[in-house]
Order: sequence, then structure tokens, then C-alpha cells
Amino acid sequence: MANGSSCADIVDPPGSEPYLLTPGPLTTSPRVKAAMLRDWGSWDGDFRAMTATLRRQLLELVCSSGTVEEFDCVPMQGSGTFVVEAMLGSFIPRDGRSLVLANGAYGQRIARTLDYLGRSYRLIDKGDYLPPRAEEVARALDEDPDIGHVIVVHCETSSGILNPVEEIAAVVHARGRKLLIDSMSALGAIPLDAAKVPFEAVVSSANKCIEGVPGFGFVIARKEALRAARGRSHSLSLDLHAQWAYMEETGQWRFTPPTHVVAAFLEALGQHRAEGGVSGRLARYVENRDTLVEGMRALGFETLLADRWLSPIIVTFFNPADPRFAFQHFYDLMKGKGFIIYPGKLTVVDSFRIGCIGRLDASVMRRVVKAVGESLEEMGVASAAPPASALEEKARLAA
Amino acid sequence: MANGSSCADIVDPPGSEPYLLTPGPLTTSPRVKAAMLRDWGSWDGDFRAMTATLRRQLLELVCSSGTVEEFDCVPMQGSGTFVVEAMLGSFIPRDGRSLVLANGAYGQRIARTLDYLGRSYRLIDKGDYLPPRAEEVARALDEDPDIGHVIVVHCETSSGILNPVEEIAAVVHARGRKLLIDSMSALGAIPLDAAKVPFEAVVSSANKCIEGVPGFGFVIARKEALRAARGRSHSLSLDLHAQWAYMEETGQWRFTPPTHVVAAFLEALGQHRAEGGVSGRLARYVENRDTLVEGMRALGFETLLADRWLSPIIVTFFNPADPRFAFQHFYDLMKGKGFIIYPGKLTVVDSFRIGCIGRLDASVMRRVVKAVGESLEEMGVASAAPPASALEEKARLAA
Repeated sequence: MANGSSCADIVDPPGSEPYLLTPGPLTTSPRVKAAMLRDWGSWDGDFRAMTATLRRQLLELVCSSGTVEEFDCVPMQGSGTFVVEAMLGSFIPRDGRSLVLANGAYGQRIARTLDYLGRSYRLIDKGDYLPPRAEEVARALDEDPDIGHVIVVHCETSSGILNPVEEIAAVVHARGRKLLIDSMSALGAIPLDAAKVPFEAVVSSANKCIEGVPGFGFVIARKEALRAARGRSHSLSLDLHAQWAYMEETGQWRFTPPTHVVAAFLEALGQHRAEGGVSGRLARYVENRDTLVEGMRALGFETLLADRWLSPIIVTFFNPADPRFAFQHFYDLMKGKGFIIYPGKLTVVDSFRIGCIGRLDASVMRRVVKAVGESLEEMGVASAAPPASALEEKARLAA
Repeated sequence: MANGSSCADIVDPPGSEPYLLTPGPLTTSPRVKAAMLRDWGSWDGDFRAMTATLRRQLLELVCSSGTVEEFDCVPMQGSGTFVVEAMLGSFIPRDGRSLVLANGAYGQRIARTLDYLGRSYRLIDKGDYLPPRAEEVARALDEDPDIGHVIVVHCETSSGILNPVEEIAAVVHARGRKLLIDSMSALGAIPLDAAKVPFEAVVSSANKCIEGVPGFGFVIARKEALRAARGRSHSLSLDLHAQWAYMEETGQWRFTPPTHVVAAFLEALGQHRAEGGVSGRLARYVENRDTLVEGMRALGFETLLADRWLSPIIVTFFNPADPRFAFQHFYDLMKGKGFIIYPGKLTVVDSFRIGCIGRLDASVMRRVVKAVGESLEEMGVASAAPPASALEEKARLAA
């Protein structure tokens, strides 16, 4: 591990509790969960101070000293999807047109949300896993001058691909458009510096790379965008301007916050800092991924993505071609050995996913690989090699 | 206490943690909080089984055997306001007209939500605390045949009034209209029987009378209403039909649920049953309220409401007229003695509120009264009697 001493609290979950190798909810530290053993009054000064700390520390994750004054952080109750919808409804004018970059379920969900909101958009849908590239974004923007906002998913966990946000941000900025980033499963582990990557707003949630528990998300946005959002939202609950203005005025959340989840998140933020912030967290996740991928390849598995596009968040593996392999059986065997894995989300080829994030390290990943090998043996699967169609699919991506 | 043995786990919060005498978040039991010491995979069968149990047990709270088939329960991420908005956006047709009954902040918030949704409505606003009555509801419905839905707040915690939902439901039903109930701070302690009170849907949240922690709400609605809601919601996240249909199909929440909050809520539901369900819970809260009100009146305080309208949820007291009384000072003194109280929400007269709900009993309420007496003494307040204007206000209500 990059920074072994700071992760001394990576301990096995108690009793029969399995590790969650899923892209959030994920396995959190005992200290994060223990922070929930107290009730907080949401109106009280102690909790208001916690909210202020949370907002400031999240802001500092993305903004270095030069940009911290230009941005603000607004937490929002609900799951990550709620805060994505809040961002879209609050920052895109009602008559505004957007460009949605999709290569998986989360990009498609953004388009579906805009359908609900009745906002006009153009969609670049790259299918299951091909990354959207700067050139095609530039072309679309040049063709369609009405587009004011571009929306991109940072890490698309459908495939596990890390999309090239930096190159996209550059062409969006050069054309005077605004970038909204869904960094749900990346923020806190994948660097994003507001001073280097021009964006309008980025959203993420409590239960991803900061390693908190689920219950709220947050947006980090330009204050200018927050001010301009006044009166624009389609939803009282998801109105980011109203949430921001009320928080600025009173220090409180507009509506009841998930107090215990917030307390857990503050503990998680402290552990994130102790691990060395984004770079420390990234180093551990990279080692998790490398340990996992190396071990799985040694067993005969193939990753969907070439190394260049593999995120340190979650990895998609093709199902073995052997007909004795059945995902549900594999899932149950892995769960029996203490590991919850994740089904695939590809439309063309059968696959499954294993997450690399949460309170786990390379030693845990080695045990995951061992459990996979044992599970194959118990299923009588002789070879983990994928079907030829999967390899053709992979070759198409590499081309 | 009505059922002493089942509340044996009413123990003082640890260390310096105060009791929360607030209408949610509230003081929960140690066992409810301890249920959060585990991470759950939201896709996994174990968690799906927890979701199914939660939905069934909530349904049984409101539906006796004869009606359970006609209704279903749909939980929704976010605070109570989120699920109120989800109910309004999902059940009221886009061109539908509603009647909103308001006598405090929560009724007004419903009207504001309809403004966001662009839904037409008529408002009966009774001011700070006067209850909406059946006759005026009947009159409004007779005058305005376009009104399809009536929306009422069960317990309006702005004043603590328990609104006469039964008489309102009867006239709404008799005129063939549909009733939506915001029972946020009442469900689980105030009886509501779908077989006796005709309604279309009722919403509440995890952190009120069931005594869970905040992070989600839920609707109990006629299946017919849920089916009719398809394609109607203004919001992807708050679409109750979509949430319901996905849950029915997969057993999962559509988007990441607050897994720890759900686990805590299941424990809270178990404790609710062990206490004797709604009637057991009500008995304890009634005793809490009676102990509080009796003690406070003995100190010279006056309640805003006459006994008839006093809910066992939260009680509004007038501030003493004595100029040495200052709410913030009083709040701080009470907090120092281990009790978080709640500011008032009246527009006309200064007041404060003390909640009767949460993991506390009459012995705790006696200590609250003692702490109030000591705080007055420390502030040098000689008499807790309210100003004459407050008593005039109260007389107006009684008239």
C-alpha cells in the first residue's frame, strides 16, 4: 500500500458481514459507522458547525487557494441521482439546450432526466463503453450553437471506464460553453482541480470514494452559477439555489438532513485527509485494481477495457465461455466466501464487475482473487477464458 | 408508562449528548443506532428482503386485513419534504386542481410545492393555528367543482395542532374527491385506519413517530393511484410510479437507498411493535405530553392551544412576558442541562416548542420541567406568565 500506516483500520468486517466490492454503497471503516451512534439536533449549533466543516472540506478537495472563492459546496439529501437532477434542473435554463455525452447507464440517465425536465438536448451515445472524445464534442458544439451546457460522466461505472474529462473540458471551455460533471464514483480518488479543468459544477455523493454511508450527495459549483439558478428549478426539494441561499443565511439544511449520515461523512473526510487526500486515496485504489486485474488475468479472465481506460474504481470482466459458469451461482459462492460482487451492465456481452473502492486494500484484493479461483473450481469451470464474441467486442474498442 | 416493560431501553444518551425534544430528528434508542454498524449491499438479496419487510410492516400500520390489498407502500430517499413533493407530483394530474388546507409552515410548504409544479390550487389558509374544519372544506368543494384533490397536514408541528383529518376525510369522500395526507409527524402514534378514514395516499418519514433516523420517507397509497401516476411526475428522482414499479419488479430501490438508515428503521419498527404498535406508542406520547403540560402550567407557562387541539407530538408554549426571558439564553441553559428544545414558528406571538416524541418517557419529561424551572431561575425570570397579547390570541382561537 502507498501509505500503509494511515490505513491501519482496514480490518475485516465483523461476523458474517461480507466485503462490498460494489461501487457504493461500499465497505466503510468501523470508525465511520461508529460516528452514527449519536443523535444530532439538525437546528442546533453543533450540527450547523458540522455542516460548515463538511462544505468547506469538500470545497477544498476540488479548489486550490486560487479558486476557492469562486466556488461553493451545497449538499443535497437523497441519492446521487437526486443531486444530478438538482444540478441539471438548477443550472440549465428552462429554454437551454445541452449536449449529453453517454457511454453507459449513467449518461443515459442524464438524458432521461432532461426528458423529465423538458429540457432540449443533443445526445452523443457511444454505446456500452466507447469513450466520448474531444474531437466529436468540438464538432457537435460547432454544429449546434444553441448548446449552452455539456454534461459528462467522469467514471462511467457501467463499464468502469474513466472518461477523458480533461480533454473534453478544454474544448467546451474554448467554445465558451459550460461543463457539468457527474463525478459520482470518482470524486475524492480521481484528481479534479478547478484551476486546471474548467467546469461549472461537479456532483458526487457521500457513499463513494470519500467512503461515507449513503444518504446525501453534493454539488461543487461556481457561485455565479448558483446565483443564476434562482427561480429556475422544477422542484422545491431539488432547488440548489434555495438550498444554498438558506444554508448561507442560517447554516442549516433547508429540510431535515440525514444527521447520522452527515456525522459519518465527517469522520470519512477525516480519514480521507489522514490517508493523504485524493492522491493517497488514488494510490490505494490503483493498487487494489492492479492487484485484482493481475490476479484475475492470471486465472484466465479478460477485462472489457484496455489498460488505458481502466479506472481504479470498478473493473468489468467478461463471463467465462464455459457453460458451467452461471453468474448467480458465482455470486452466491463469492458471498459465502465473504465478498459481494456486482453484476454486469453491458448490453452486448455477459460480464460482471468487481469494485476497487471502499475500506479495503491489496491484501483484501488478493483474497478476492483466491475466492474467485476457488469458486470457479467449485462450479467445475475449467477455463475462465471469455467467448470469442467478447474478444471481438474488445478488439472493436481498441480499434 | 402505559407499557413499561417494553420501553426498558429508555436510557439516557451517553456522555454529554442531550435529549432531542424536537419533532424529528429525535432521540432514538441505542439499538436503533447500533443497527447502523454494518454495511449492506443494496443489490444483495439480504437487503432486498429488508426492503420487503419494511414495506409490508408500514402497510400494516395503516391497513387492516380488509384494505391491505388495495394499498401499497413505496419508500423514497430524502427528507419528508421530498416524499410530500413526490406525492403531489405523482398523484395530482398535471392539469388537476387541488385544495390545500394550511394552518402553519407545512401547509404553506405544500402550496409552495404546487407553485413549483405549476399545479393549480385553491388555498384555505387558517393562519398560525386555527384548524381547517369540515364545513369550510365542504363549501370550497361545492363552490369549485374542478378540485380533484384535497391536501391536509395531519399534525401541523408549527403549532403542534392535531388537525381534524377524520371529519375532513368524510366530506372529501362524500363529494367524490381524493384526500392526500401529510402525516409526517403523526403516523405511527396517531391512529389512521384506511378502512375508516377514506384517503388516496398518506406520507410520513423515518425519523418521526416510528423513531428511526432521518434519510428517507414513504408513501402509503392506493395501488390504483400508483398505477394512474405513470408518466405524470415532474421529476425522475421523485417519480413514485417509477419507484414503485421498479421495486415491484426487482425488490430493489431504483437508486441507491440509505442502507444504514433503512437498517435502523427496521429495528425501530420492531421496537414500535414491541411497544404495542400505534396504541402503545400513543399512550407513551400522551403521558409525555400530559406530564410536560401539567408541569409547565404549574411553572406558570401557557400553551398556545386549548387541550382539545393539543397533539401528543409537540407543544407550543408562549414565551414569558418577563423581559429577562430571552429564547437563545433559555435554549443554551436547557442544552447545558441535557435538553435540546425547539424555537417557535408563530408569526404573531413569541413562543417556543417542546417535543414529546422519541425515545423518552414521563420520567424524562419531569426532568425537562425541572430544568425549565431552574433555567428561569438562572435567568432571573420571576414569572412564566405570557404577555396579554398572547392570551388574547389564545382566546381568539377558543372562540
